[in-house]
Amino acid sequence: MIIDCHGHYTTAPAGLQAFRESQLAGLKAAIDVPPFAQGAISDEEIRASLETAQLKLQRERGTDLTIFSPRASAMAHDVGNETTSRRWTEACNDLINRVCRLYPQNFVGVCQLPQSPGVAPLHSAAELERCVSQLGFIGCNLNPDPSGGRWNSPPLTDRHWYPLYEKIVELDVPAMVHVSSSCNPNFHTTGAHYLNADTTAFMQFLSSDLFKDFPTLRFIIPHGGGAVPYHWGRYRGLAQDMKRPLLKDYLLKNVFFDTCVYHLPGIELLLKVIPVDNIIFGSEMVGAVRGVDPETDHYFDDTRRYLDALELSPGDRFKIFEGNARRVFPRLAARLATLSP
Amino acid sequence: MIIDCHGHYTTAPAGLQAFRESQLAGLKAAIDVPPFAQGAISDEEIRASLETAQLKLQRERGTDLTIFSPRASAMAHDVGNETTSRRWTEACNDLINRVCRLYPQNFVGVCQLPQSPGVAPLHSAAELERCVSQLGFIGCNLNPDPSGGRWNSPPLTDRHWYPLYEKIVELDVPAMVHVSSSCNPNFHTTGAHYLNADTTAFMQFLSSDLFKDFPTLRFIIPHGGGAVPYHWGRYRGLAQDMKRPLLKDYLLKNVFFDTCVYHLPGIELLLKVIPVDNIIFGSEMVGAVRGVDPETDHYFDDTRRYLDALELSPGDRFKIFEGNARRVFPRLAARLATLSP
Repeated sequence: MIIDCHGHYTTAPAGLQAFRESQLAGLKAAIDVPPFAQGAISDEEIRASLETAQLKLQRERGTDLTIFSPRASAMAHDVGNETTSRRWTEACNDLINRVCRLYPQNFVGVCQLPQSPGVAPLHSAAELERCVSQLGFIGCNLNPDPSGGRWNSPPLTDRHWYPLYEKIVELDVPAMVHVSSSCNPNFHTTGAHYLNADTTAFMQFLSSDLFKDFPTLRFIIPHGGGAVPYHWGRYRGLAQDMKRPLLKDYLLKNVFFDTCVYHLPGIELLLKVIPVDNIIFGSEMVGAVRGVDPETDHYFDDTRRYLDALELSPGDRFKIFEGNARRVFPRLAARLATLSP
Repeated sequence: MIIDCHGHYTTAPAGLQAFRESQLAGLKAAIDVPPFAQGAISDEEIRASLETAQLKLQRERGTDLTIFSPRASAMAHDVGNETTSRRWTEACNDLINRVCRLYPQNFVGVCQLPQSPGVAPLHSAAELERCVSQLGFIGCNLNPDPSGGRWNSPPLTDRHWYPLYEKIVELDVPAMVHVSSSCNPNFHTTGAHYLNADTTAFMQFLSSDLFKDFPTLRFIIPHGGGAVPYHWGRYRGLAQDMKRPLLKDYLLKNVFFDTCVYHLPGIELLLKVIPVDNIIFGSEMVGAVRGVDPETDHYFDDTRRYLDALELSPGDRFKIFEGNARRVFPRLAARLATLSP
């Protein structure tokens, strides 16, 4: 079985964006547009949005199940206020739920959180609980910078975040560290802000005792860990200069990397420096990069090909494509058990 | 000859820091401490600060010449006002000049710029001109975020920076894109802010037509290019999605990467994906990571060893260790010609 741990619903029916636009228009008039203002989206529209995109690519690439969440760049936690974020988040998560009900063999849900700048992270706990306990979602995306590129929240290792971590740990779900679109003209969203956030979060974890306080808290750092594996020597050296233990001993029980790295040399490096137990297959499709690489004639984000090109042992292959995902997302097993074979 | 393009004076005599502390104390009383308040630093102190550090390491590692600039993390352009930054910058650059006069065979200068948040970059042109024309410096470090982690200046591709670029082009010196210490608790200075800035700057260049406007402007992106080489497929794909030409055709005449990557797999990746004409040897010593790697028993930042471990052709080796530096820093040749053989 091949589980893709990183997919966003980037092809959602137009009705979702129409609701967002009504929210944005409402904000200009100081109105919080209520959820019932959302136009109906039919099952047919959902099917059409997936059959020509994610499902088609799953079939073509031979992957089985995508751990699926709302479009990350559209989370835009900085827009409006806490109510805006909550209503938008609920709409996005509800749509993911419908996808997972329509295609239970192909998709399992991970939720967006209703974060909002300056709002206590604990305010996201109710939506997390709803998605996990009621909708059967198995994880969440956590935005370390709800401001969208201003970076004015405390680091992920600050006690500011602890009440939400308690809920995450209680529900036994992992969090993918994932920012949304950048409002800062310095940071291109998918070409800088995403990777910077990955690098930033890892270094926050490295500098902290967060996992002493939460030994079972688990984070996935997407996009192959940002700059981290390429600079693995720097991080080992920084940890040593800071008199910390070895990275493998104090971080790698809790921190995992996906394989959203869009060329073979990058994936080779990732496999060379990061222990295989910490690598989870992901493609981010349909996402940041949509084209075909003229150097290979395959999609840049067809990351399975890069892994297939490496001589992985069957055991390592199993871990990367399935085993690690089952371990990091413990609710996945229960979810899969409910499916007819 | 082995030229190290990236070294900072991280071991400067205590007198330099004493002047800085007098500046900081003065600021509290709204006084701009004048330059003559700087205590004398003797040649002996300068020699002692280098003989046990950079010079010792040059000898041990068999490198010849370091392109040397003030400590990057201490630039702290966000501190005080334009006058504070100018006086501090002049003091730092003057000390680099003394180093280069004392050890002309071992060091050649690159200057700090007296940037200050909200101040027009053109205000740095006079100090650049002084350093290059009067002191014989061959380049500058340009801080894309003088705020120190708030990232509130326009991107490097904005016309905001153009008047300074005109001076840089006129003097025919390259700029290393280098931030200073981070005041933002989210960003660890050497473990996140430095690498994020490298990644950010590259993506700014990729998204722009800056090099159409300045065909001879040259930037070195340090720390092996941040996350860029590891994500080279992502960048090729983003450029393609944005209908841009191939990266090699519109960026790589102007953008170069150093080799400050502290493990062999990272250097291997860099050499595999970035054309050899765009790679310039650098070690950042004595810098971000100071320890010995227990996995190799050599210093993490002894980057020459990683390159020596690769099977480089003599031509490629020459380019990385000497030829590219001579090409990117055209004033280096004139400077070297003045030395007795």
